[in-house]
Amino acid sequence: MPPARRRTGRRLGDSGARQQILDTASREFAQHGFDGATIRAIAAQAEVDPALVHHYFGTKEKLFADAVRFPVDPAVALPALLAPGVDGLGERIVRFFVTLWDQAGDQSPFFGVIRGAVSHEQSADLLREFMIREVLGRVAAAVETPDGTDPMLRATLVGSQLVGLGMVRYLLRVEPLASAGIDEVVAAVAPTVQRYLTGDLST
Amino acid sequence: MPPARRRTGRRLGDSGARQQILDTASREFAQHGFDGATIRAIAAQAEVDPALVHHYFGTKEKLFADAVRFPVDPAVALPALLAPGVDGLGERIVRFFVTLWDQAGDQSPFFGVIRGAVSHEQSADLLREFMIREVLGRVAAAVETPDGTDPMLRATLVGSQLVGLGMVRYLLRVEPLASAGIDEVVAAVAPTVQRYLTGDLST
Repeated sequence: MPPARRRTGRRLGDSGARQQILDTASREFAQHGFDGATIRAIAAQAEVDPALVHHYFGTKEKLFADAVRFPVDPAVALPALLAPGVDGLGERIVRFFVTLWDQAGDQSPFFGVIRGAVSHEQSADLLREFMIREVLGRVAAAVETPDGTDPMLRATLVGSQLVGLGMVRYLLRVEPLASAGIDEVVAAVAPTVQRYLTGDLST
Repeated sequence: MPPARRRTGRRLGDSGARQQILDTASREFAQHGFDGATIRAIAAQAEVDPALVHHYFGTKEKLFADAVRFPVDPAVALPALLAPGVDGLGERIVRFFVTLWDQAGDQSPFFGVIRGAVSHEQSADLLREFMIREVLGRVAAAVETPDGTDPMLRATLVGSQLVGLGMVRYLLRVEPLASAGIDEVVAAVAPTVQRYLTGDLST
């Protein structure tokens, strides 16, 4: 029994421990991907016992699913984006994500998700489920499709532009898109997203 | 000396050996990423001596750069796409890539490139260089920008939509975009690419 180590660990029930583990896991997944990150390393970085990580989150898969949530809660952020209606929604969505990612840099959980998803089939499943449940499903429910276009097709097209923007701007860092100002990116990309949401996609 | 193994290997100078190595390397990089693929495994799959791989391609990095070329030669395909001019170029580009990727499925070298790039900084450098030299640079040289927008910004925006489409349709396989017909995808995405190429990006 190493009492010194025990004392540096947080007690079960410490109100901050769960969030501390989540924050640490986000960072570890972002840096090392799904396979590279370990419960042991996450627990060490978070200064908790690995048993506490298992207690709160169960498996590494469940921890991943919880950890890759956006820095903001999609259950709060998406309704706020969608509430004013579809007018200007493309601009609000693009500005929201670019602002979020600019602040996070390439340590954003988003890139941990992408790293995991491309190298690990289970992570791809998790990312797909997360995207659909937390983002695309909400967007699909909000769009108007008078022409009968499947709202989920509209939402997945929005997702394709956002994922690609994230890849090229932050992960591959291809210039000049990598260094373009937020307003320039929003002006260029928002009309794409708006058209996917409300435009005619049949021509 | 294992003469039996020698006889199964191709002789130096075999005209098909170089292409066989490249095809095998594309497949191995697509399946295992940059780090997971090895010269030894590629040589074994291609039924050549590892020394022949080194003879033709030098390092694994150089082999990667050669292997991740599109199934078609960009030096031929891109000029053919661009030659008819900017009218309808968005549609030709989207149809070209979707057709290529639909045929290749998720074993496409494109996805090997993506897998490598997200987990390996050197592969990200290689993908960036490849995209710029072989695709984006050619596209940028062909677009008209009467409003003074940087042609490379236009090209990287095109790249962002194509990379994201590839990610969501083939790698994450989010429905209904994953199963949408080519014509439906082209109708939805081509106007985006056309606007990035020739449209007003300032509003």
